Amino acid sequence: MSSSSLLQASISSSSSAFFANTKINFNSRAQNVSLPAKPLGVCTCVATPQSEKTAFKTQVSRNVNIAKLQAGYLFPEIARRRAAHLQKYPDAQVISLGIGDTTEPIPEVITSAMAKRSHALSTLEGYSGYGAEQGEKPLRAAIASTFYDNLDIEEDDIFVSDGAKCDISRLQVVFGSNVTMAVQDPSYPAYVDSSVIMGQTGEYQKAVEKFGNIEYMRCTPENGFFPDLRTVARTDIIFFCSPNNPTGSAATREQLTQLVQFAKDNGSIIVYDSAYAMYMSDDNPRSIFEIPGAKEVAIETSSFSKYAGFTGVRLGWTVVPKQLLFSDGFPVAKDFNRIVCTCFNGASNISQAGGLACLSPEGLKAMHEVIGFYKENTNIIVETFESLGFKVYGGKNAPYVWVHFPGQSSWDVFSEILEKTHVVTTPGSGFGPGGEGFVRVSAFGHRSNVLEACKRFKQLYK
Amino acid sequence: MSSSSLLQASISSSSSAFFANTKINFNSRAQNVSLPAKPLGVCTCVATPQSEKTAFKTQVSRNVNIAKLQAGYLFPEIARRRAAHLQKYPDAQVISLGIGDTTEPIPEVITSAMAKRSHALSTLEGYSGYGAEQGEKPLRAAIASTFYDNLDIEEDDIFVSDGAKCDISRLQVVFGSNVTMAVQDPSYPAYVDSSVIMGQTGEYQKAVEKFGNIEYMRCTPENGFFPDLRTVARTDIIFFCSPNNPTGSAATREQLTQLVQFAKDNGSIIVYDSAYAMYMSDDNPRSIFEIPGAKEVAIETSSFSKYAGFTGVRLGWTVVPKQLLFSDGFPVAKDFNRIVCTCFNGASNISQAGGLACLSPEGLKAMHEVIGFYKENTNIIVETFESLGFKVYGGKNAPYVWVHFPGQSSWDVFSEILEKTHVVTTPGSGFGPGGEGFVRVSAFGHRSNVLEACKRFKQLYK
Repeated sequence: MSSSSLLQASISSSSSAFFANTKINFNSRAQNVSLPAKPLGVCTCVATPQSEKTAFKTQVSRNVNIAKLQAGYLFPEIARRRAAHLQKYPDAQVISLGIGDTTEPIPEVITSAMAKRSHALSTLEGYSGYGAEQGEKPLRAAIASTFYDNLDIEEDDIFVSDGAKCDISRLQVVFGSNVTMAVQDPSYPAYVDSSVIMGQTGEYQKAVEKFGNIEYMRCTPENGFFPDLRTVARTDIIFFCSPNNPTGSAATREQLTQLVQFAKDNGSIIVYDSAYAMYMSDDNPRSIFEIPGAKEVAIETSSFSKYAGFTGVRLGWTVVPKQLLFSDGFPVAKDFNRIVCTCFNGASNISQAGGLACLSPEGLKAMHEVIGFYKENTNIIVETFESLGFKVYGGKNAPYVWVHFPGQSSWDVFSEILEKTHVVTTPGSGFGPGGEGFVRVSAFGHRSNVLEACKRFKQLYK
Repeated sequence: MSSSSLLQASISSSSSAFFANTKINFNSRAQNVSLPAKPLGVCTCVATPQSEKTAFKTQVSRNVNIAKLQAGYLFPEIARRRAAHLQKYPDAQVISLGIGDTTEPIPEVITSAMAKRSHALSTLEGYSGYGAEQGEKPLRAAIASTFYDNLDIEEDDIFVSDGAKCDISRLQVVFGSNVTMAVQDPSYPAYVDSSVIMGQTGEYQKAVEKFGNIEYMRCTPENGFFPDLRTVARTDIIFFCSPNNPTGSAATREQLTQLVQFAKDNGSIIVYDSAYAMYMSDDNPRSIFEIPGAKEVAIETSSFSKYAGFTGVRLGWTVVPKQLLFSDGFPVAKDFNRIVCTCFNGASNISQAGGLACLSPEGLKAMHEVIGFYKENTNIIVETFESLGFKVYGGKNAPYVWVHFPGQSSWDVFSEILEKTHVVTTPGSGFGPGGEGFVRVSAFGHRSNVLEACKRFKQLYK
C-alpha cells in the first residue's frame, strides 16, 4: 500500500464535498446527525434568501417529517468549521480523520475487471441493458458463498445494491411510518434520519437531544458498548451495527444470542449492519446469521465500500432471509423485493463486475491487504492515544478509534484538536447523546497523514 | 450500428429478468403496473409456502401501503406468459419488443472513459472515495450547458443520480404521504406505484382499474394525448412525461404553456419526465424549462439510459430549480438535497465518467447515432403497422409505437401477437385504464429482430 507525500496528502485524501465551500452549503455533503441545538444556534445549512415576499410559492405543504430533521446536520457543520479554520490558517496542512472515507487505491485485479466490463459494453456480445434489480446471479452467489457459507443463506436471499446506506432507506420505505424503532446510542446517523423522514418518530427534543418515539439503547464503556436489554423497550425494528460505527466495538456471540432472543421475545426485526465485519480481529460473529434462529428475526446489510475502497464506486448488499415474516405471515423479502424493483433499478453493471472480482481468490487477498493497511493505521492511532494516557475503545475490530475525554464536551475537544493540530475528527455527540465525551478518529487515511496526525496529537497532549 | 444473426438475436436482446423463470418470480423483474384484476385472478408473484402454521412470525405489521400494490404486477405477468409460451413452443424464436430496454453497444468514446476511470482508481492520483451526493461538478456543469443552455438552469440545480426511476421515488419521499397527485393515463407505472407506496393513495378500485385519490388525466387520440385540463381536479403534484411513455406523443409548446399555467393557478408542482427528449423529431420543447415561469412550478427528471444505452450502467439526473418553493416558502431543492444526502450516496464515479464522456462533442455525436438507429427502427415499425391499415400513434418523437386496436382488449391482442408471431409487446392497459385497446411496441432491438418481427406482423395481419 503506497503512501503519498505530506504536501499532496495535506490537500486531504477525500474528494467529497465534506470540504465544501461554506457559501455553497446547499451542495455540501450532508450525512446528517442529530446535533445538540445549543452550540449550533441557527442551522447554517438552511438559510438562503429564496423566499422573498415577491417570490411565487406553490400551495404544496412541506413534508413535516423532513422539517423535523432541521435540528441536525453534523458533517456540513464540521465542513463549515473546517472552512472557517482554513480561513483563519490559510497555510494549515489540514488532515482529515473525520469522515470514514477510504483513501487507498483499489487493487488492480478489481479495477481491471471493471475496465474490462466497460469495454465489453461496446461489443455486441458484451453489451447488457437492464439487469435484474436484485443483482447479477454470479455476484449474488459469490456473496452468499463468501460471507454466508454454511449459514443456509441462499443466493436469492441476497439483494445487491448501490450501498448499505441506500438500502437502509429502502428498508425504511418497506417498514413505513407505523413502526417503532430502536438504535444503539451512539450510532451511525442514517438509521435515525431515515426513521424521521419516514414519519416513525416524534419531534426532536432539544433537552435530551433525542427524537421522540425512538428507543435509544445506550452503549457505553460501562456496559461494554452492548445495551442492557432488560431496560430496552420493545420496538418493531432494532437497528444494530457491529462492529460498531462509531464506537468500534463488536458484539460477542453471547451478546448477539441475547439480542436475537430479545427480538424473538418481542417479535421485533433486527436490521444488522455488518459493513465493517472484515475488519474484525477476534472471533466474534461476522454475521448475525451465525446466531441460531436469526433468520426469523433479522436482516443484514453490508457493503464493499470499506473492504475494497468502493465508497465512490457504490456497491453493497442486503440479506433478507425468506424465513423472516411480518405478523400476518407475509415474507418481508417479498416487500423488499417490491421496493427494490419499484424504487431502484439495480447497481451499476460495471460496479457489479468489480464486486465479483473482489470475491475471486485474488480479489479477496487484495481486499485483505487493503484492510490490513487500515488496521495498521488503527494500531498507530490506538497506540498514540494510549501512550498519552487516554482511555481508548474500538480499533481492534473496526477502523474507528473511540477516544474518551470524560467530562468534556466532544465539540469542545473536536475544536481544540482542529485548532491546535489542524486535524479533523468527529465529535462523538454527533452520533447521539451517548457519544458525548468521546471523539471518533477514523483510520482511513494515507500512512503519512496518519503518522503526521499522531505526531501532532503527541505534541498537543504530551 | 451492427446487427446480429437471427439465431443469436432470438435469445433476446435483453439480459434482464424480464425473461425470468416462473419458478423464481420472487427474483423476477418487477416494474409493476396496475392490472385489471379479472384476467389475472390470483397474483402469481406472491405465493410461496413460507408461512406454514409452524413458522415463527414477527409482530411487525406489514406496511399497508405496500399491500395495496398487490393488485398489479405487469412485467412479471408478461414474463410468466412468455415462459408459458416457450414451454408450449420450445423452439420458438421469441423476439422482445416489450420492455423498453436498450440493445445496442455503447459507443467506445463513452466506454473508454469509464475504463480509464476504472484504471485510475488503482492509482494514488486517480483514486477517489465518496463523491458529492449531488454528482461531480464537471458533470453537473456539462448537463446544465448541454440540456439547459440559455434556460437559466445552473449547475447546482442539477442533481446527478443513478436513474430517473430512482429519483422519482426519492421525490416521493420528499413529498411524503400528505400530498395528492395526478398522472397521465396511460403512464409509466413508477409514478403511480411510488405514490401508492408513500401512502398518498387509497385502495385499488377494481371496477375502474384505478387507485383512489389519484387524478388520472386521460390521454387519448381524441385529445391529442394531452389532457383536457378543464376537467382535471387540482392536485399537489402532477407527473407529466413528454415525449410520453407509452403513447410516444410529445406535448407542444402551447400545451406545456397551458400546463405550467394550470400548475401556477393551482399552486401545484409538476414532475416533468423528459427521459426521451433526445428522440424528438419536431421542434416541441425538449425541457419544461423552455416554458416561461416553469422554474417556479416544475422539477424535471431525465436519464442517460435511453440516450447512451446506460440502462445497466445507471445514470440520470433531476433538475430542481431554486425558484421552486413549498407553500411556506421553503425551497423544494433543499429538501430534495437532504433526501439525496441521507437516502443516497451519489451515482457510481465510473458511471459519472461515462456521463461526462457522453456530453463531449464526440460523445454527443455518438449518442445521436445510437438514437438515430433506434429512430430508424421506429420508422420500420410505424410503416409496418400503417401498411397493415392500423392507426398508429407515437414513434415520431419517442422510441415507442402506440398501435390502436379499437374495441379489443389489449391483453387479448398481446396474447394473439405472442401466440402467432412469437413477439413480446406490452399491453396498453398495463399503463393504466386509458391504455386499453392499445399495444405498445418498443423500438429498442437489434435491426434484424425488428425486421423479423415486422415480417411476422405482416403475415399475421395481412
